[in-house]
Amino acid sequence: MTSHGRLAGVIPPLCTPLAPDGEVDESSLDRLVDHLVDGGVHGLFVLGTTGEVSALSDAQRERVVAVAVARAAGRLPVLVGAIDTGTARVVDQARRAAAAGASAVVVTAPFYAGTHPTEIHRHFTDVAARVDVPVVAYDIPSRVGTKLRPETVIDLAADGAIVAVKDSSGSDVSLRALLSRRSRRGVDLSVFTGSELTVDYAIGLGCDGVVPGLGNVDPAGYRRLFDLARAGRTEDARAEQDRLFELFRITAAASTAGRSGTSAALGAFKAALVTLGVITGANLARPGIPLDEGEIEAVRGIVAEFGPRIGEKVGVGSTG
Amino acid sequence: MTSHGRLAGVIPPLCTPLAPDGEVDESSLDRLVDHLVDGGVHGLFVLGTTGEVSALSDAQRERVVAVAVARAAGRLPVLVGAIDTGTARVVDQARRAAAAGASAVVVTAPFYAGTHPTEIHRHFTDVAARVDVPVVAYDIPSRVGTKLRPETVIDLAADGAIVAVKDSSGSDVSLRALLSRRSRRGVDLSVFTGSELTVDYAIGLGCDGVVPGLGNVDPAGYRRLFDLARAGRTEDARAEQDRLFELFRITAAASTAGRSGTSAALGAFKAALVTLGVITGANLARPGIPLDEGEIEAVRGIVAEFGPRIGEKVGVGSTG
Amino acid sequence: MTSHGRLAGVIPPLCTPLAPDGEVDESSLDRLVDHLVDGGVHGLFVLGTTGEVSALSDAQRERVVAVAVARAAGRLPVLVGAIDTGTARVVDQARRAAAAGASAVVVTAPFYAGTHPTEIHRHFTDVAARVDVPVVAYDIPSRVGTKLRPETVIDLAADGAIVAVKDSSGSDVSLRALLSRRSRRGVDLSVFTGSELTVDYAIGLGCDGVVPGLGNVDPAGYRRLFDLARAGRTEDARAEQDRLFELFRITAAASTAGRSGTSAALGAFKAALVTLGVITGANLARPGIPLDEGEIEAVRGIVAEFGPRIGEKVGVGSTG
Amino acid sequence: MTSHGRLAGVIPPLCTPLAPDGEVDESSLDRLVDHLVDGGVHGLFVLGTTGEVSALSDAQRERVVAVAVARAAGRLPVLVGAIDTGTARVVDQARRAAAAGASAVVVTAPFYAGTHPTEIHRHFTDVAARVDVPVVAYDIPSRVGTKLRPETVIDLAADGAIVAVKDSSGSDVSLRALLSRRSRRGVDLSVFTGSELTVDYAIGLGCDGVVPGLGNVDPAGYRRLFDLARAGRTEDARAEQDRLFELFRITAAASTAGRSGTSAALGAFKAALVTLGVITGANLARPGIPLDEGEIEAVRGIVAEFGPRIGEKVGVGSTG
Repeated sequence: MTSHGRLAGVIPPLCTPLAPDGEVDESSLDRLVDHLVDGGVHGLFVLGTTGEVSALSDAQRERVVAVAVARAAGRLPVLVGAIDTGTARVVDQARRAAAAGASAVVVTAPFYAGTHPTEIHRHFTDVAARVDVPVVAYDIPSRVGTKLRPETVIDLAADGAIVAVKDSSGSDVSLRALLSRRSRRGVDLSVFTGSELTVDYAIGLGCDGVVPGLGNVDPAGYRRLFDLARAGRTEDARAEQDRLFELFRITAAASTAGRSGTSAALGAFKAALVTLGVITGANLARPGIPLDEGEIEAVRGIVAEFGPRIGEKVGVGSTG
Repeated sequence: MTSHGRLAGVIPPLCTPLAPDGEVDESSLDRLVDHLVDGGVHGLFVLGTTGEVSALSDAQRERVVAVAVARAAGRLPVLVGAIDTGTARVVDQARRAAAAGASAVVVTAPFYAGTHPTEIHRHFTDVAARVDVPVVAYDIPSRVGTKLRPETVIDLAADGAIVAVKDSSGSDVSLRALLSRRSRRGVDLSVFTGSELTVDYAIGLGCDGVVPGLGNVDPAGYRRLFDLARAGRTEDARAEQDRLFELFRITAAASTAGRSGTSAALGAFKAALVTLGVITGANLARPGIPLDEGEIEAVRGIVAEFGPRIGEKVGVGSTG
Repeated sequence: MTSHGRLAGVIPPLCTPLAPDGEVDESSLDRLVDHLVDGGVHGLFVLGTTGEVSALSDAQRERVVAVAVARAAGRLPVLVGAIDTGTARVVDQARRAAAAGASAVVVTAPFYAGTHPTEIHRHFTDVAARVDVPVVAYDIPSRVGTKLRPETVIDLAADGAIVAVKDSSGSDVSLRALLSRRSRRGVDLSVFTGSELTVDYAIGLGCDGVVPGLGNVDPAGYRRLFDLARAGRTEDARAEQDRLFELFRITAAASTAGRSGTSAALGAFKAALVTLGVITGANLARPGIPLDEGEIEAVRGIVAEFGPRIGEKVGVGSTG
Repeated sequence: MTSHGRLAGVIPPLCTPLAPDGEVDESSLDRLVDHLVDGGVHGLFVLGTTGEVSALSDAQRERVVAVAVARAAGRLPVLVGAIDTGTARVVDQARRAAAAGASAVVVTAPFYAGTHPTEIHRHFTDVAARVDVPVVAYDIPSRVGTKLRPETVIDLAADGAIVAVKDSSGSDVSLRALLSRRSRRGVDLSVFTGSELTVDYAIGLGCDGVVPGLGNVDPAGYRRLFDLARAGRTEDARAEQDRLFELFRITAAASTAGRSGTSAALGAFKAALVTLGVITGANLARPGIPLDEGEIEAVRGIVAEFGPRIGEKVGVGSTG
């Protein structure tokens, strides 16, 4: 899927820009795609958790995919979340995404109903058999309530049911087990970390890439971090990761007294994108409560101190 | 909505009978509706957790509503689960249900994305404003990860956004708080318990009804239990609840070594319905793993010992 | 242990009155014992969760037992919590309690280290074999992280390792299972609920008694509630429970912004006892943060509206 | 405390060898101390979670400290867990440890009772004020139910209440926040990771050391890993960590069908030590269930494949 055949690199999960009436703000989405491509990312991931997928209607989801695919225009792969509660529903979502031009679909374990590893294995096998594009497994226990076991992931890859996994479990032990078993079994599987604050470590450990929510705000920073870590420049990578760690503090700028932590974090990404001139408004999908003016101002301050410089060039060389 | 204007009584959450190919088994669903109506229940609730709603496609959901509404034929109200992750999606589900004849829609807090009480309040308010049938709030923290607070529920009822709540939280303290605040605030709100094993208590406490999964298997038993509890016949109600408690052991008949607890429980309800001749097969929606022959046999034994007698008449009088 | 040989009735878990320097306030403890005995309770339980056992040194624990046993003076049994992390430690605590005059010791599952039902069974069996007074099992998963399974409890009772269980799990299904299995197995076991807000239900269901934290404040109310429930006067019992439910709101009078929920609740019990003139100060064991003056005032208001009348007589007859 | 004044390096949490009757096996403990010193570790930590502290009586705890301090004989510092539920109890434990020769005491947040960050801060401040040896904070939410917040830890260090923290929370984001704030605030605080499977990463990130349970079995391996990581030899460090990752599989050798995960893991460490000839028996403190013969054999196989070679020399140089 990439130049080396395996999915790799920086693939940010795109925010979904919304107009005040809640509909998809298509020109902002166009600009966001350009912002990311200009930043040097390797792929786009729309309709993920960061994209507020669970709050978007099917019609809105279809608009997002259509706009992103058109704007990407083949410059880089577009992964699409087919996030839904059960097998039949995921298949429906995935087929719509594939029809709209998705390069791959991203699929979680079933949720809402309780599930079991045996049933999770069946779920991915069924989806893969009924969908025409590659499947990426998405391990996000904080949302779906169950962790994908490393054994299950490796088995699915060995069977050809999945081509990659995005690990947002936050368990470094599990990540290490996954990479260790991949080597021993010799299976072809791209491993992405969803932890945007430990990318230097994850790449050093053998991960193929990262899916950083904060990459919406600073794609060039994540590209640089990725390149430094791949080049074994540990100290430089750590310094870049440390800067991005500080930038991540935007997610704590908003109050959670009358708003979920999810709204605080996603609202902050959008506020930063408004600050940078990439998107027009920081609206969240209902019932999410967006940042108020004072909170946006706090985000602006953090971005000014730790965020991307406008017009900076991409690549390791440019950091010298 | 009922003869007294307020939703009340026994409203089982219907299992969704499925053919071996996974499609809705419509004639079995017809027979299940008849079985429940004959058992004397006061309403039907399709597309709930027991109905495997999270595993059914939109097309399957539409079939279930159409069949149930047609078979009920106005004999009793049909509540329909509009279970989805976010506000826009729930509105879409609810409108389809209303168009197909739902008497009311049943709605949970948002899930997958994190949420906050303020956002939950917005969610229900939005849904109610955009849907033409009454809304029933469904409090099921084990599935959606958040508990509806009694204050939120009472506020929503006072605003006219909801007409009833189904409390499947398992918290008797919360249930007591809900009933106590309902009295003090004087709001019009039907309170249903989703705990099928403490119905005598819940009705005694002031609940208006129950939504018992086990009511699929023994609707007449739940009707009798409800009538006894309402009549203040505490000892008789307890004896009936004790019998149903034993019958509930069917949900522990299947192994959970290679299957989720959800599949074990829902598979047991279906196995019991096969045993009673109501539905044709005990198939579960993918990726759920149904009971095997030995497990179905175990269910049959428990049903034979504690289950409904075929052809028994309904009503308190018939227990004497 | 009671007049009928089986432990039964209202057995409040005593607060531990403390002086400003943190030491046990012995004269306040004397008065608390008298307050409870005058209220008509059937037993005393010192060094429970409500007694801040986990924050008291061994020396303090020994003072509490000595004072309570001396003041009870054989008028009613004194149960003593032997709450510690592992088997050897619990045996040490239990032996000290027995030596100081405990009628029985109250023991939880091991905590801190992970544990398994098989190991929990061994734990209780070991403790019972090495201690000379009866053992009461204390099921409090919110504190120790594991739930005692009904099977384990019944097995332990059948083996004579325990004489009673205090169920503070909040699971009404588990409570029902416990009572149902007790009947079917025919074992001799007293079952107490630790849920002070559902006593009418629990006694109606077959429980032998209740261990109500709020019973520190209103022992006569709990005695009355117990008697009404045992007499089958369902409506009157519910009314009394409803009043006590309102009184329980004292536990929400204090802020939890800079204080744990535990401190807010235990601090409120103590504040109410100060208000009623039973104990001298509302101090909590370090590091617990007691209620401030404004919060104590709020407690006073709730007690004035819903609390016990001074000098009221005990018993069902007195409510007429 | 070390040659540089700050606590650093490899400080394994010692297993507590036990005789068949459950008493401390003092000669095995002597040999374990020697095994670790010979392996090149920088300190010893007795009475931690790995040392089964929660299952040992006060008398047993005193024996363990006395034996370890005597055998260490000043060759390296001996840290002692003062693990108990509340402030007064921890002070008692800590004073006994200090009197027996502890170099420092290791203290968790309060547990059993609920707690709040404000109360946790008070707890550590109180303990430090009343104990004569340095205090190390122990962040182990899986056992005590609450996470130490990075802010709290940094504040305590700035106040001089603690000299080090052992982070067994498993949260790499929190670890990164801790290190980042330590730099910005310029406080003197040793940071240890308790995650034995990510040592290369943690040291690279700026941690001062590691407290590896598996270090009981392979102290020289952890010393080598520490030295390689400190020297910036990333690839070599990763290879050594990968080997230790495989060795850690001994913790999965025992069944958890009738035994807790804790017993399976701690039992495996002891079985490996028996296999290596360091300690005499693999007994666990009651009610823990030790490994059976077949399981010990499985441990032996993994140790033979991935474990330490007998008589190997210590240090980075020896790996070449």
